[in-house]
Amino acid sequence: MSKFWSSMVKRTEPYIPGEQLNEENIIKLNTNENPYPPSPDVLKSIQKEMEHKLQLYPSPSVDHLRQAIAAQHDVKKENIFVGNGSDEVLAFSFMAFFEPGKKILFPEITYSFYPVYSKLFNIPFEKIPLNSDFTLPKEEFFQSEGGVIFPNPNAPTGVYLSIRAVEEIVQNNPGCVVVVDEAYIDFASGSAISLINSYDNLLVVQTLSKSRSLAGLRVGFALGNAALIQALTRIKDSFNSYPIDRLAIVGAEAAMLDHTYFKQTTERIIQTREWVAKELKDYHFHVIPSQANFLFVRHNDHQAKDLYERLKQEGVVVRHFDKDPIANYLRITIGTDEEMKLLFTKLAFILDEG
Amino acid sequence: MSKFWSSMVKRTEPYIPGEQLNEENIIKLNTNENPYPPSPDVLKSIQKEMEHKLQLYPSPSVDHLRQAIAAQHDVKKENIFVGNGSDEVLAFSFMAFFEPGKKILFPEITYSFYPVYSKLFNIPFEKIPLNSDFTLPKEEFFQSEGGVIFPNPNAPTGVYLSIRAVEEIVQNNPGCVVVVDEAYIDFASGSAISLINSYDNLLVVQTLSKSRSLAGLRVGFALGNAALIQALTRIKDSFNSYPIDRLAIVGAEAAMLDHTYFKQTTERIIQTREWVAKELKDYHFHVIPSQANFLFVRHNDHQAKDLYERLKQEGVVVRHFDKDPIANYLRITIGTDEEMKLLFTKLAFILDEG
Repeated sequence: MSKFWSSMVKRTEPYIPGEQLNEENIIKLNTNENPYPPSPDVLKSIQKEMEHKLQLYPSPSVDHLRQAIAAQHDVKKENIFVGNGSDEVLAFSFMAFFEPGKKILFPEITYSFYPVYSKLFNIPFEKIPLNSDFTLPKEEFFQSEGGVIFPNPNAPTGVYLSIRAVEEIVQNNPGCVVVVDEAYIDFASGSAISLINSYDNLLVVQTLSKSRSLAGLRVGFALGNAALIQALTRIKDSFNSYPIDRLAIVGAEAAMLDHTYFKQTTERIIQTREWVAKELKDYHFHVIPSQANFLFVRHNDHQAKDLYERLKQEGVVVRHFDKDPIANYLRITIGTDEEMKLLFTKLAFILDEG
Repeated sequence: MSKFWSSMVKRTEPYIPGEQLNEENIIKLNTNENPYPPSPDVLKSIQKEMEHKLQLYPSPSVDHLRQAIAAQHDVKKENIFVGNGSDEVLAFSFMAFFEPGKKILFPEITYSFYPVYSKLFNIPFEKIPLNSDFTLPKEEFFQSEGGVIFPNPNAPTGVYLSIRAVEEIVQNNPGCVVVVDEAYIDFASGSAISLINSYDNLLVVQTLSKSRSLAGLRVGFALGNAALIQALTRIKDSFNSYPIDRLAIVGAEAAMLDHTYFKQTTERIIQTREWVAKELKDYHFHVIPSQANFLFVRHNDHQAKDLYERLKQEGVVVRHFDKDPIANYLRITIGTDEEMKLLFTKLAFILDEG
């Protein structure tokens, strides 16, 4: 603490991201990255752009990239906002749609950045407890005072809420904005994007970090009514004119356009997830039904914290949130089949000890 | 305007960046970019990194890059904060050090993003008029209520303030933070970095967009006392964990380490500037003494707006700020010698008409 810190700095409780370990030999299943590299077209596009003019500013409005995203989702460019990762898009959404003095709602168990944004921007919030099976009690999100935000599928549980239920939440908040954070939606059965033309208070946020294998490039986007997109654009243009660099713009565009590669890799991850879920049950794990690229699991006989530490010693890093009510769960990212086989080898060894 | 816009969106008055024109044949002297490409080491480093793992998140703390910047400036890593362009660093500084209810001071003629940030974050401000020769009246910045921010050299004038005068402003604001925005300092005679170990209320902000030829990559940084850097880090970690992507991190690092190339290109630009300043006087321009990579000029007989439009028709784009008291000035970025020769060819033609 310093006398020069603003009241904003003093009230922050910063988010702590999963560890980015640099060792070569670990199996990294802790930050829900894609185990497959991005489309080869991404590298080709970046290669071409870097030989061009890195000394010139990028496009502040990223029109080509927004066009590529719009085409992919059958909406207009005016319905797309692009930011520096979906985290920046979410931060801008808190600034653009939520208000100090008006309470917003989000699930008790959810992406832990939401309370962080709320504290930063002085937005009061209420955490809605989940049902005991980690499903979302949709009615509890009706008639909010200041807005609603939740991930679908939820994180870190992986539990998916039907589009019909999302629609009911949107319908029952006619006076404020509902933000649906679809970071993991491409591993699930359907997006709320189909609703944005029907509801002017729905904002859908997605990312290229997961299904497009571009966590290293920092590109996320929002889809919604043009007036909501204008609000985000006003915030961006009052904050940082060019948050997406030239290489990220062309890389993201190429990733959005290579639909075949996207389909192949997401389907492969879904297949691996289903196999791993079944296998983990054989190892006496309770496995929450997931529609994301990770599994949220609890062992019948072993403490999550112990398993997390033993796995780390064995070179497999998963995520453990050491807080109630999820302190006895592990979140395991879906890697390649080979990585998951190694996970099971290590698990068999560790569980055998105990 | 929409009923879903927050009070924050409603009070914004977004910044309008210089045009990013895509035509191939124009001479772009409007956004103070470097006419030379980045160091060849930058491209090599990006090339190597892109073959690596773009599917993995970058380092949230960018330790290697901070180390490279620290080494260059003979300070410690703990004195360095890195952001997505100096605009993001400036936005975070407004959040971290300035306070709603406490008036900050900046020059009346200055970087037009400062009032934009102020409005976004509800920070009251007073614009201090410059002296008639566009120099900064240092005493007017003493004993501010909430803090001080100014560019050195100033923008869009290019006028440089001596380090001794900067130090007096810092000394005479012991209770709040003085932000010195040194976007153009590498074209000037000396940086305030030498003062950061002596004053705990001084933050110096720099960028790789100008002297390092990396406007397209979006990397800026701040130097200051460790407690100030911690404040910026808390804001960043409450906003967006990874604002710098993998390619920008390694590109920026390579640019910071290639001191020889940096020296060559900045010295070349300074030489061109001095020649162009002299030449413009021969064309009956009043030229403000500049220590930046641009010149701020007024013609004795021609309106700035007319010249701006005629030059644009002729394929040379400069910057014109259509507002008092600088409506009759043009800001001309220093390009290559060849580009500046073409500017003079066009100018001779245009002035001949009138």
